[in-house]
Amino acid sequence: MKNNLVPNTGHEFRSRCSIARALELIGDKWTLLIVRDLMWHNKHTFQAMQNSVERIPTNILSQRLKKLMDWGLVRREPYQERPLRYHYLLTDNGQSLEPVLSQIMGWGHEHLEGGLHPPGVSKNSDTRLV
Amino acid sequence: MKNNLVPNTGHEFRSRCSIARALELIGDKWTLLIVRDLMWHNKHTFQAMQNSVERIPTNILSQRLKKLMDWGLVRREPYQERPLRYHYLLTDNGQSLEPVLSQIMGWGHEHLEGGLHPPGVSKNSDTRLV
Repeated sequence: MKNNLVPNTGHEFRSRCSIARALELIGDKWTLLIVRDLMWHNKHTFQAMQNSVERIPTNILSQRLKKLMDWGLVRREPYQERPLRYHYLLTDNGQSLEPVLSQIMGWGHEHLEGGLHPPGVSKNSDTRLV
Repeated sequence: MKNNLVPNTGHEFRSRCSIARALELIGDKWTLLIVRDLMWHNKHTFQAMQNSVERIPTNILSQRLKKLMDWGLVRREPYQERPLRYHYLLTDNGQSLEPVLSQIMGWGHEHLEGGLHPPGVSKNSDTRLV
């Protein structure tokens, strides 16, 4: 099964290179932190993500979540009716970023003295809420 | 052996998270394309990198190369004296980004219809010129 993420918005990629294409989606300081929060940190509401230690600015969080939804990596669902509240969930395509996150985490741990959040967590607890 | 890349410039990371730290270095649309060019495309001069199909703007290429050198991922060496010309080479720490690049490439190939440039190339030819 092909999981083709090119949206119907007429997006034109800058080259055929898979790395260049991927960086058009995830090549910034914030997008993969949102994916991290959804994948491993059980943060599924706007408020929860906003409260992460990196303090993502509100407008950037909104914009990145919209982009992730436009590309089919994240979807949102209402979890409360009055008042209407949404939570955000990784789609299967979003979940497919786990090896990318793991590699980046391992590199940052090795070279930048960063802390390690074992990716195994996502396999033992249902952080996707699906 | 620890390959600690925190430079002596008093850089303050925004969190302990290895992913957040790594994205402070490589979290943009261009940096990993420069690493790609050095690692797999045998492009080692400013001109050669500037001519890559993604057409990186000159000022961004300068700024990113400087950052990569400040962090010890890239070094430059003179290859000609009159006029003085430099080429750019990955350090061992820069080379350690290969699994990160490979994962991103694989993901872009699978989901964004991108082309694949086999990472095995770097193991068969000495693209680092060291």
